[in-house]
Amino acid sequence: MIVFVNGKYLNDNEANINVNDRGYLLADGVYEGFRVYNGKIFKFQEHKQRFQRSLNELKIQYTLKDELETIFENLFEKNSYKNSDELFYYIQITRGVALRDHAFPKEKTKVGIYAFVAKKPLNEKAYNEGLKVCTTPDNRWARCDIKCISLTANCLAKQNALDNGFDDALFVHDGVITEATASNVFFVKDNTIYTHGATNRILSGITRNFVIDLCNENGFKLSEFPLTVDKLKTVDEAFLTGTTLEVTPIVKINNISINEQKVGETTKKLQKLFKEYLQNNFYKKS
Amino acid sequence: MIVFVNGKYLNDNEANINVNDRGYLLADGVYEGFRVYNGKIFKFQEHKQRFQRSLNELKIQYTLKDELETIFENLFEKNSYKNSDELFYYIQITRGVALRDHAFPKEKTKVGIYAFVAKKPLNEKAYNEGLKVCTTPDNRWARCDIKCISLTANCLAKQNALDNGFDDALFVHDGVITEATASNVFFVKDNTIYTHGATNRILSGITRNFVIDLCNENGFKLSEFPLTVDKLKTVDEAFLTGTTLEVTPIVKINNISINEQKVGETTKKLQKLFKEYLQNNFYKKS
Repeated sequence: MIVFVNGKYLNDNEANINVNDRGYLLADGVYEGFRVYNGKIFKFQEHKQRFQRSLNELKIQYTLKDELETIFENLFEKNSYKNSDELFYYIQITRGVALRDHAFPKEKTKVGIYAFVAKKPLNEKAYNEGLKVCTTPDNRWARCDIKCISLTANCLAKQNALDNGFDDALFVHDGVITEATASNVFFVKDNTIYTHGATNRILSGITRNFVIDLCNENGFKLSEFPLTVDKLKTVDEAFLTGTTLEVTPIVKINNISINEQKVGETTKKLQKLFKEYLQNNFYKKS
Repeated sequence: MIVFVNGKYLNDNEANINVNDRGYLLADGVYEGFRVYNGKIFKFQEHKQRFQRSLNELKIQYTLKDELETIFENLFEKNSYKNSDELFYYIQITRGVALRDHAFPKEKTKVGIYAFVAKKPLNEKAYNEGLKVCTTPDNRWARCDIKCISLTANCLAKQNALDNGFDDALFVHDGVITEATASNVFFVKDNTIYTHGATNRILSGITRNFVIDLCNENGFKLSEFPLTVDKLKTVDEAFLTGTTLEVTPIVKINNISINEQKVGETTKKLQKLFKEYLQNNFYKKS
């Protein structure tokens, strides 16, 4: 795979960064992940805006211009991808190279940029049959709203879920469910759809926000309010939203079967509305 | 400077790691920092034991043998350091190189190792006159007991302190002071010395534990119990402990002067006991 690193397009096994890149030493960087349908990026402006916000929150002095578009186009071409490929575009920006110190470098550094575009098809089985997830303590830092490369807690929670026979984990903070290890979570209960508010405790997902729009535009009752863990037994449906998940159902949480482990009607309706949007905006011949 | 990276000794500006090292992408690694006096490492076994624990907690399957000693000796020699140099030895180990995924790589990866030895003299001014620090919300993750490279919150807190005219910041979690951005904190109040217990909210510092030993062996009354922020105005003395700080006084916290901004007697006694230990164990001719 050809990747982009600090101005160069290289094979990933030959693509290197300096050991003193602050991303490697101190997790001092942010990232963004994009979905590509039919060769075009989904909700590009929203992702770009969030990426700039992440940079600003970490006080990395860098203003995005058109490099996101250029790098994507070059990686698409250099890897000979086709429009029919389901792609994931990843890019991260770090504060750059400096001798290790918690304080920012006194002299302005050149930011480090790494990007790749990889094939990542939708997990059809999960999409159609649903996932089994567990709950786990939300050990992450208090700024989950920043899309930061500081993902140790997410990795540990995900692996722990897999090791225990689950597909993913839902984080629990102060008794409420915040989100999953790399996606947002929604619950349906008594004809209302619940998801955690866009506070510092979650990443305000682009797909999350799009699904909220779909709910509002299509007459679903939605509340941006978290679910407490003690109410898990009473939910009617649950699903995850994310860049590469779209709307992926959850059918089991810990030992609790959701809707008899069948994908619920509200989830199916949202999946359909999502696919219709994609069809109209990415695939329809004009 | 000659550094060590994945088996090679190279100039730091030529020392690279692959972009897909999980340390760079996901902060999936741990580190250790050692103090070197007169060419010998301070409390080596304690550091090594803590490093192994950090590896274990992150489930990085790697057992330390004698590489810590070997790498140090080689870096000392290749950089032509002298016994009179005050040195800091840094080493980090990551889970290695794999295509980006929160889950651990399915196939066992070779860990990534990076190490350097740099000159880092004790800050004499701070040691003799004390530091000015501020308090800041403890935004870190819940596993501060693991010496993990996921240090974004520490970097932001340190830089924010500097930007506001302070030398460092003390983290406040649930109304109690946990530690500083890269060191532990002690308070003296009514002839008792307080420091936060060695829970998941702090890194159990090797120097912290050594100073606790010094207190116990020398008749100081010590309590491993945290100080609430509202009691800051009533403390008699305060100091930081750390690998490169030894016992460094704090003379001001936010707008509160501690002991009229003079280094207190208890702090001075502990500094003296610390220096005597170093003299007897690292410098005395046998």
